[in-house]
Amino acid sequence: MDTIAAISTPYGVGGIAVVRVSGEEAIETVERLTGSLGSAKPYSVRHAYLRRGDEVLDEVLVTVFRAPHSYTGEDVVEIACHGSLYIQQEVLRWLTDAGCRTARAGEFTERAFMNGKMDLTQAEAVADLIAAETRAEKDLAMSQLRGKVSTELNELRERLLHFTSLIELELDFADHEELEFADRSELRALSHEIETRLSALIASFRTGNAIRNGIPVAIIGAPNVGKSTLLNALLGEQRAIVSDIQGTTRDTVEDTLILDGILFRLIDTAGLRETHDTLENLGIERSLAAADKAQIILSVTEMGKETVNYQPKEGQQLIKIYNKVDLLMPDERMNLIDGLCISAKHGVIEQVKNKLVQIVRASLNTGGVVLSNQRHYEAICRAHEAIQRVEQGLEDGLSGELLSMDLQDCLTALGEVTGQISSQEVLNNIFSKFCIGK
Amino acid sequence: MDTIAAISTPYGVGGIAVVRVSGEEAIETVERLTGSLGSAKPYSVRHAYLRRGDEVLDEVLVTVFRAPHSYTGEDVVEIACHGSLYIQQEVLRWLTDAGCRTARAGEFTERAFMNGKMDLTQAEAVADLIAAETRAEKDLAMSQLRGKVSTELNELRERLLHFTSLIELELDFADHEELEFADRSELRALSHEIETRLSALIASFRTGNAIRNGIPVAIIGAPNVGKSTLLNALLGEQRAIVSDIQGTTRDTVEDTLILDGILFRLIDTAGLRETHDTLENLGIERSLAAADKAQIILSVTEMGKETVNYQPKEGQQLIKIYNKVDLLMPDERMNLIDGLCISAKHGVIEQVKNKLVQIVRASLNTGGVVLSNQRHYEAICRAHEAIQRVEQGLEDGLSGELLSMDLQDCLTALGEVTGQISSQEVLNNIFSKFCIGK
Repeated sequence: MDTIAAISTPYGVGGIAVVRVSGEEAIETVERLTGSLGSAKPYSVRHAYLRRGDEVLDEVLVTVFRAPHSYTGEDVVEIACHGSLYIQQEVLRWLTDAGCRTARAGEFTERAFMNGKMDLTQAEAVADLIAAETRAEKDLAMSQLRGKVSTELNELRERLLHFTSLIELELDFADHEELEFADRSELRALSHEIETRLSALIASFRTGNAIRNGIPVAIIGAPNVGKSTLLNALLGEQRAIVSDIQGTTRDTVEDTLILDGILFRLIDTAGLRETHDTLENLGIERSLAAADKAQIILSVTEMGKETVNYQPKEGQQLIKIYNKVDLLMPDERMNLIDGLCISAKHGVIEQVKNKLVQIVRASLNTGGVVLSNQRHYEAICRAHEAIQRVEQGLEDGLSGELLSMDLQDCLTALGEVTGQISSQEVLNNIFSKFCIGK
Repeated sequence: MDTIAAISTPYGVGGIAVVRVSGEEAIETVERLTGSLGSAKPYSVRHAYLRRGDEVLDEVLVTVFRAPHSYTGEDVVEIACHGSLYIQQEVLRWLTDAGCRTARAGEFTERAFMNGKMDLTQAEAVADLIAAETRAEKDLAMSQLRGKVSTELNELRERLLHFTSLIELELDFADHEELEFADRSELRALSHEIETRLSALIASFRTGNAIRNGIPVAIIGAPNVGKSTLLNALLGEQRAIVSDIQGTTRDTVEDTLILDGILFRLIDTAGLRETHDTLENLGIERSLAAADKAQIILSVTEMGKETVNYQPKEGQQLIKIYNKVDLLMPDERMNLIDGLCISAKHGVIEQVKNKLVQIVRASLNTGGVVLSNQRHYEAICRAHEAIQRVEQGLEDGLSGELLSMDLQDCLTALGEVTGQISSQEVLNNIFSKFCIGK
């Protein structure tokens, strides 16, 4: 394996920058440039000058990690230099002059995967962690980095593997028709369990994916009930135009809001009503389209005004909101127990914020593992289809040979998630999306 | 002293980021967030999770430095976290929640100065090093960081201090007129030596300053001798418009070039000749103004064409260049020994590049110490004026009392450079120009 090097800290000028070197020659190479590393204890930091002949490049701190106890599983040296762009680039150039190769994007993490330091979901979690912009994203990535996804899948996969082996053993004794090593009822129970878990994981992807891209929340209702006022109040700024005129909002107005570390995409829509105004009808069409794609619907209504009857789709959550309650008598408010009572105009909207967070937290708390990666989602969908075929096959009394094919499909799909089964193409695709230096 | 914290790596997203903590509570604070630092050996790296209750913020590497053997001279902890912007900011927020204060720009280095880890010129060199964009800049800063400026000044200052004390002692015995503890001829010799060294340092500032801002090089000559062609050949691109028409260049054309780590600012000028064309005369005026400000003059000429007689100012270097030598017979070239023979059109210009580098390297090699900092320059100019007054005073046989005042002025000015004498205002001014986290 080549010895690779890259700047691991963000691009730019700063107090310090870190250049990482990994591979068999890592320690020797840095030793040649510092002259004082040979005896370095692993996991210890030492002060050194990078020098070549008379030229001193920089005063640095050098940390040595010895294989296999390092990020990549190889010998690793981290050089903390002064954060001048010139110096950073020169340190890298000196290292490549001394025989290192510049690392490709994600190559350190790819080596960590190759050397068994982490499985593929954990490697992918590293990239997610670096890209995380909210607490919810970071929590998802951290849970994945700590192996929660893989632990669950590996456990299911191993139990399935056991049955598959037994069934394949049966095939070797194909002459003895009656021979069944694999207990069909046990296999049926396991298949059902797996089917249920995979279903749950697939369902969790809706939340996981939304957490990465923002949970879509549509604000709908009749005209003039205060939808735009609610949007503005939630955002804390005058984002949407507000007026007393019905149909003020035409285009859907969208903005993002982070609550308790969760990213929401709020979508204000045109008021829904029967009208012959062409422009207004176009707006209403867009409102309904936005509502269809939302995961949470804030259905705003006002006492004495028309209520919009929106039927939530599967997986959608509808929150009923009574606005302008400051205009009501206390006893009138008592009747509004099926929704949240707010006054968007006066900023009394805390309940809406709390409810939004509560809904997402609840969907995150079902079993702990939440899928957020498109690749995992697709592989698990394939595994789910295969296990459904196994279940159907058991129902229909299919031969072991046919069952075995579907079982193999399921095992392969599960193995692809954790990287026990992987192609170079898939790996390239994953690691090329990393930043250089990680 | 507060415990301070800041992100020390460049701003942005990257593989890793480093958050630095310094102060009495540094180790204890990070201990509370990682739960595994108390027994950490200094200068050792350990793996940890940053956690608060149930929330895990990140998987990090933590390095502990114990006072006084750290950058700041205080207890220091460096936390290497994943380089997500969110995570970096959260790490800092958790630290401030735990009682740290966000560090001001340059505050770590200011503490290093306060705790005697470096003098003021070295602290300033850290900022220069981080801002370095070329090798020459980096070399200047590195030489300053390694204490070359201070070592020289301190040595001169101490010898001067000795004499000053003796002269002040004389004042205590003012009744005994004849008493002279300080040997006037020795003091005269020392003053002369100091005056000579300070003169050299002041002269070196021209180069030092130019290295930071780029050495100005003016290309002058009669019209159509190939000045713009030479500029383009040096830059390796078609920067200036070239034509056979005399007076093609009107405005001075400027661009930068890095040769052997040195930044040059090349200035192409209008051809110099007698003309009644108003526009052309304006161009010629600018050419002469540019030449006046240049440190190196490339005076281009062509056999058979008019030669411009430019008289270099003090400190300026003039290089005579014969262009279009490809058009000459070999025996004609033999006569051009007082200049460089080139063919700008055919890219035969290596000699010019070599000469430029050679001139700057030579000016850097006089004694080793080169001033590059405006503040040092001003203080040393004051010291130089004071020591000249001392010399004059010795000449005139001034009383010890009067000599002593000038000696004190000189000592103060020298002490200001290294920071032995400093005001909070000066310090604030210096450190506020640092980046945060250093």
